[in-house]
Amino acid sequence: MSEIFRDILDVFDNSYPERDYEIKIFCPEFTSVCPKTGQPDYGTITIQYIPDKKCIELKSLKLYLQRFRNEGIFYENVTNRILDDLVACLEPKWMQIEADFTPRGGISTNVTVEYYAESEEDDEAPISLSENS
Amino acid sequence: MSEIFRDILDVFDNSYPERDYEIKIFCPEFTSVCPKTGQPDYGTITIQYIPDKKCIELKSLKLYLQRFRNEGIFYENVTNRILDDLVACLEPKWMQIEADFTPRGGISTNVTVEYYAESEEDDEAPISLSENS
Amino acid sequence: MSEIFRDILDVFDNSYPERDYEIKIFCPEFTSVCPKTGQPDYGTITIQYIPDKKCIELKSLKLYLQRFRNEGIFYENVTNRILDDLVACLEPKWMQIEADFTPRGGISTNVTVEYYAESEEDDEAPISLSENS
Amino acid sequence: MSEIFRDILDVFDNSYPERDYEIKIFCPEFTSVCPKTGQPDYGTITIQYIPDKKCIELKSLKLYLQRFRNEGIFYENVTNRILDDLVACLEPKWMQIEADFTPRGGISTNVTVEYYAESEEDDEAPISLSENS
Amino acid sequence: MSEIFRDILDVFDNSYPERDYEIKIFCPEFTSVCPKTGQPDYGTITIQYIPDKKCIELKSLKLYLQRFRNEGIFYENVTNRILDDLVACLEPKWMQIEADFTPRGGISTNVTVEYYAESEEDDEAPISLSENS
Amino acid sequence: MSEIFRDILDVFDNSYPERDYEIKIFCPEFTSVCPKTGQPDYGTITIQYIPDKKCIELKSLKLYLQRFRNEGIFYENVTNRILDDLVACLEPKWMQIEADFTPRGGISTNVTVEYYAESEEDDEAPISLSENS
Amino acid sequence: MSEIFRDILDVFDNSYPERDYEIKIFCPEFTSVCPKTGQPDYGTITIQYIPDKKCIELKSLKLYLQRFRNEGIFYENVTNRILDDLVACLEPKWMQIEADFTPRGGISTNVTVEYYAESEEDDEAPISLSENS
Amino acid sequence: MSEIFRDILDVFDNSYPERDYEIKIFCPEFTSVCPKTGQPDYGTITIQYIPDKKCIELKSLKLYLQRFRNEGIFYENVTNRILDDLVACLEPKWMQIEADFTPRGGISTNVTVEYYAESEEDDEAPISLSENS
Amino acid sequence: MSEIFRDILDVFDNSYPERDYEIKIFCPEFTSVCPKTGQPDYGTITIQYIPDKKCIELKSLKLYLQRFRNEGIFYENVTNRILDDLVACLEPKWMQIEADFTPRGGISTNVTVEYYAESEEDDEAPISLSENS
Amino acid sequence: MSEIFRDILDVFDNSYPERDYEIKIFCPEFTSVCPKTGQPDYGTITIQYIPDKKCIELKSLKLYLQRFRNEGIFYENVTNRILDDLVACLEPKWMQIEADFTPRGGISTNVTVEYYAESEEDDEAPISLSENS
Repeated sequence: MSEIFRDILDVFDNSYPERDYEIKIFCPEFTSVCPKTGQPDYGTITIQYIPDKKCIELKSLKLYLQRFRNEGIFYENVTNRILDDLVACLEPKWMQIEADFTPRGGISTNVTVEYYAESEEDDEAPISLSENS
Repeated sequence: MSEIFRDILDVFDNSYPERDYEIKIFCPEFTSVCPKTGQPDYGTITIQYIPDKKCIELKSLKLYLQRFRNEGIFYENVTNRILDDLVACLEPKWMQIEADFTPRGGISTNVTVEYYAESEEDDEAPISLSENS
Repeated sequence: MSEIFRDILDVFDNSYPERDYEIKIFCPEFTSVCPKTGQPDYGTITIQYIPDKKCIELKSLKLYLQRFRNEGIFYENVTNRILDDLVACLEPKWMQIEADFTPRGGISTNVTVEYYAESEEDDEAPISLSENS
Repeated sequence: MSEIFRDILDVFDNSYPERDYEIKIFCPEFTSVCPKTGQPDYGTITIQYIPDKKCIELKSLKLYLQRFRNEGIFYENVTNRILDDLVACLEPKWMQIEADFTPRGGISTNVTVEYYAESEEDDEAPISLSENS
Repeated sequence: MSEIFRDILDVFDNSYPERDYEIKIFCPEFTSVCPKTGQPDYGTITIQYIPDKKCIELKSLKLYLQRFRNEGIFYENVTNRILDDLVACLEPKWMQIEADFTPRGGISTNVTVEYYAESEEDDEAPISLSENS
Repeated sequence: MSEIFRDILDVFDNSYPERDYEIKIFCPEFTSVCPKTGQPDYGTITIQYIPDKKCIELKSLKLYLQRFRNEGIFYENVTNRILDDLVACLEPKWMQIEADFTPRGGISTNVTVEYYAESEEDDEAPISLSENS
Repeated sequence: MSEIFRDILDVFDNSYPERDYEIKIFCPEFTSVCPKTGQPDYGTITIQYIPDKKCIELKSLKLYLQRFRNEGIFYENVTNRILDDLVACLEPKWMQIEADFTPRGGISTNVTVEYYAESEEDDEAPISLSENS
Repeated sequence: MSEIFRDILDVFDNSYPERDYEIKIFCPEFTSVCPKTGQPDYGTITIQYIPDKKCIELKSLKLYLQRFRNEGIFYENVTNRILDDLVACLEPKWMQIEADFTPRGGISTNVTVEYYAESEEDDEAPISLSENS
Repeated sequence: MSEIFRDILDVFDNSYPERDYEIKIFCPEFTSVCPKTGQPDYGTITIQYIPDKKCIELKSLKLYLQRFRNEGIFYENVTNRILDDLVACLEPKWMQIEADFTPRGGISTNVTVEYYAESEEDDEAPISLSENS
Repeated sequence: MSEIFRDILDVFDNSYPERDYEIKIFCPEFTSVCPKTGQPDYGTITIQYIPDKKCIELKSLKLYLQRFRNEGIFYENVTNRILDDLVACLEPKWMQIEADFTPRGGISTNVTVEYYAESEEDDEAPISLSENS
C-alpha cells in the first residue's frame, strides 16, 4: 500500500550537495482517520533533513500528505511510514519526522522517528549543525 | 495495591521494533488526593518512551490514570509508581515520567523519574535521538 | 439533591454594603463526571458577583465545588446549578457564572449564566462598574 | 442537499428555558474542500447561542461537522449553511457562527454570521448578557 | 492611476444578500515603497466588510495587493486608496481597512479607515453584529 | 487604625486640573497577611484615577502599600480600605482599585472597587475617556 | 520652554480631509529624566488621532520626542505637554496620548490624556470609528 | 543565625532511594528585605534536587522561606544560605537553587547556586537525567 | 549573477579580532519571488557569525537583501547564496544563515546553512561560546 | 576614555568564594548614540558571571551603564567595552555580555562576548553549572 502513496513524491536536484545543511518543513494541516473508531485525527507533521543529492518538491509533498486524509492508520505507524517513504525518495544524509496529534479523551500524543544514512551514523552528522535556537 | 491498578493497562505490538523512536504522551487531566489533607491534587503527567516490542494503548492508559482519582498518594510516589507500572507492562528501551502539579500554598512541584533497560544503559540510548526543539 | 450540596456554603458579612463593588473568583480545578459516558470532565469555573449583605467564604466554596467530583451532571446543568446555589446563599445584587470545559472529541464548550436581583435589573447594575480591562 | 447534512443533528431539552444564558462551542478541527481547486481547507468553527427550548447534543454536532470533510464549499457559504442548519434544529433565541480559516496564498479569512429570533430582535437579546472578558 | 490597479479585482455574487454578515480578511504580506526614501515598507492589511450583492474573490485580491509591491506611496494614502478601490468594486454595506506597518526609526504606524453605505449610516449597521471577541 | 496608614500618603498639585485625564498605577508587589491563618497573601494592586486638584506622589504610595506587609486583613477589606484612604487624600474625580490575589487552595480572587465624586456621578465621567485598548 | 520643543514638528496635508479616519503611532523608545532624582525614565508613547487638514510627519515626530532625552519632567506633565504640542501643530479632530512608563521601586505608571476639537466634542467623534480589536 | 532558620525544615523518607530522580519546586512568593535600603525585595525561588535518603516536606519549606520575610539579606547571600540549609537537612545527591528577583532601578538579578554530593561529583550525576524540555 | 549582488556589501574592521565573539542579525523583512509561480515569497533571514578581521556594515546588508526583492530564486538556493556572498566578503571564523519562510499551501519551510573557516573546523569553534538561552 | 567610565564601578566581597555559582543581571534600559547618524540606540544588556573574590554592586552598575547615554559608540564596541570594564573590576572566573538592540531599518542586532579566567579556560568552568532552563 505504501508504494502507492509514495509514487506522488517529486524531487529536484540539490544545488549544494557538497555542503551539509538542514531543511525543516512544518505541515500543520495533517489529517488521517483512526482505524479503530473511524474518527478523524488531526496533527502537525514536522520534517527535518540534511539532503544528499535530492530535495523534496513541496507541492508534491502536500499532495502526498493529503493522501492520508481518508486513510485509517495509527499514530505510530503513520509517522514511521512517512519516514520510510521520504527516505526511499530522497536518500537523505539524515532525516527526522515528528508528528504531534491533537488531544483525544484529554490525552495528546507526539511521535518522533529518525533516520541516519549508514555512512553518517558513525560521524554523528546532525551535530555538525550547531543548535541556534 | 499497585498490581490492581496496572492490570487495566493494554498494549499492542510495535510495528517498527528494529528502529529506535520516541513516543511522548501528555495527560493534563490527572487528579489524585493528598493522603495527609484529603484534598484533591491536580497535575499534568508527561510520559516519554522508546518502545521495544510493545506500545501502550491510549484508552487503557486513560482508564489507568483515572484510577488515581480518589487515591491518596504523595507526589513523589505517584510518579515513581506510574513508571513502575508502565515499565512492567511495556518493557521499553527507555522511559521517563514527569508529573507537574498545580500550586498549593504558593508552591508548585514537579517530579521527573527515568528508566533505562539494562542493555540500553551502556549505550546512552536517548542520545541517539537528536534534540529537535 | 441540590439542597444537600449548597448547605456546605458559608458566608460572612459584607463590610461595605453601601458600595457596589465586584468580586471575581477563578476555580481552575473543577471536575465532575459525564452522566452519559461516566468519564470525568474538567473545567474552570469563574464566579463574578456584586455582593449585597453577604460575601462567600472561600474555603467553603472550595469544598462545595469538590462535591461535584464524582457527580454525573451535564455542562449546562452544572453551570445553572452553581448559580442557583450561590444566589440562594448570597442573595447578591448581580452574579455571573462561567464554566469553561476542556475539549472532548476535538470540541470544547463554555457556558455562561447570569442573575440580577430584581431591583437591580432596572438599573443595569453591572454597568455602574466601568470596564478596566 | 443541506437537508441531508442537518438530519444527523440531535438535541436535548433545555432544563433552564426561563433563563437567558449563553453556550459557546469551539470546533478547531473543521475541514472541507475548496470547490475551485479541490484542495482541503482547514478552520475553527465557533458556535455561540442562547437556547430556547432545545440544546445541541455535542456528539451529533461533531458528526454533523465531519460531513463537510470531503464537501466542496466556499468559506462564506459553509458559515451561512451551518447557521441555517443549527437554527432549523435548535430554534434558539440568538445564534452566531464564526468560521476562521487558515491562510492560503498569504491571506486568511474569517466569516461571522448571526441570527436573532423574531421576538428577540426588538429586545437586543445578547446585550442582556454583560461582557466578562 | 488607481483605476489601473483596481481593474484586476474580481467579485462573485453574495449567496446570502438578505442577511448582514461580516467577512474579515488578513493580508500580513503587504509591501510597498516609501516615496521619500525609496526604501520598502512592510505591513499587515486587515479588510472587514458587510457584503451587499458582491463578495471579493480572494485570488484577485492577492494580485491587487501585489501591485503595490514597487509602488511609492505613503501609509495614509495606501490605506485610503485600498478602501476606495474595494468600495468601488464591491459596493458593500460597510467596510473598514486597517494597515499596520512595521517600525521605522523605532516608530510604528497604524492607519484605520472606514466606509458606510449611505442608507447604512443612519442605522449604525456594524452594531447589528454583536462583538464576540 | 486606617488613619495611621493614610497619613504617610503625599500629594502634589495637578498641573492640568482643567483637563480630565487618567492615571493608572500598577503595584505587583503587594503583600499582606491572612487574618484567619496568619499566612502571607500576595497580589497586584492596580489604581486608576482622574485627578482633580491633586496627584499621588509615587514614593509615598509605595511606603503606604508596604504598611500592609504584616497587617492581618481580608481581600475585600484591603481593597475598600485602599480606595477610602486614596480618596480621602486625593479627592479625585473618579477612582478604581483592583486587587488581584494569587491562588490559595486552587482558587484565586480579584476585587474591584470604584468611586465617583458627587458632581461626576451624573456625568458618567470616565466615559469621556474613550477606550483605547 | 515648550515652544522651543514643538517648533521641530513638521506636518503634511491630509489627502482625505473629508473622511474621518484614525492614525495610531507607537513610540516605544521614549526616554526623559526624573526631575527629582536625575535618573532616566523610559516609556512607550502611543499617539492616536483623527486628522483634520494636517498629518504629522514621522521623522519630525521622532526628533521632537528625542528632545526630551535629557529633559527633567514628571510623567503627568510630559504626557500633557506632548498633547498640547501636537494639538497646536495638527489641529486634529480628536487626539489621545498614552504614556506607559517602566517600573520604578516595583511600581509602574501609565498616563492617558485626550483632546476633542470643539465642534467634535458634541458629536462624540471617535465613536464614528467602530472598534475592530 | 542560619541554624535558627533551618530547624523548622522537616523531611520524610525517600521511598525510592535506589533510583535517581529529580524533584523541582517553584516558590514564586518569596520576599525578604534589602539590608542597605530597608526596602522589601521580591523573587521566585526554584529548588531542584536528586534526593538520597530524605525528601523535603513542603509545608515546612513554605514556613522556612517565610522566615526571610522581614530579614535583611543580599541576593547572593540568601541564595547560598538556602542551599546550605537544605543541603544540611536533606543531604541530597545533587541540588540547585535559583533565585530570580524583580527589577530595581530598571535592573533585575538572578542567582544560581549548585551542590554535588562528593561521590556524585565524579559521576556527573545530573546528566543521568536526560533533558526533556 | 551572484557577484553583482554581493558587490554592494560593505565591511568595517573588527576592533576585537583577538577575541571570539558572536554577532546575530535578524532581518524579518526579506522578500523574493518564486521562480516557478512568479508569486512573492516572504521570510526572516537570521545571520550569525564569529568575525575574524571584518564585520558587516548593516546598511549595506539591508541594501544587499533588498536586491532579492524581484529576484526569482528557490528557498534552498537563496539561503546558500547569502552564505556564499557573506563568507566571500567577511571571511568569518564561523557563520550560519537561517531562512524562515511564511506558509504556502499550509506548509512552511526553514533552511539552515553553516560555514566554518578551515582552521576552525578542527577546534569546534562555536562551542567556545557557551549557550545562554 | 574607557578608564573614565569604569572608575564608577563599585564591588563588594563575595561571601562564598569557594563555591562556583552564577549571577545573571538584566538591564533592559540601555541607551547609547550611533556614532554615524547621531541617533539614539536602545537595547538590553545581559551580564552573566561566576564571581571569584568580588561581586558587582548593582547601583554602581546602573550608573556605569547610564554613562553611555550620550556616548557615540558602535554595537560591537559597546559590548566588548562593557566586558573589558567589568572584567577589570571584578576579575571573575567567567563572564558573558549579551547586548540585544532594537530594530533599525527593519534589522535588529545582538552581540555576545565572553571571557574566561586563564586557569578556568582549561576546566571548561561554565559547564560545572548544569543548565536548568
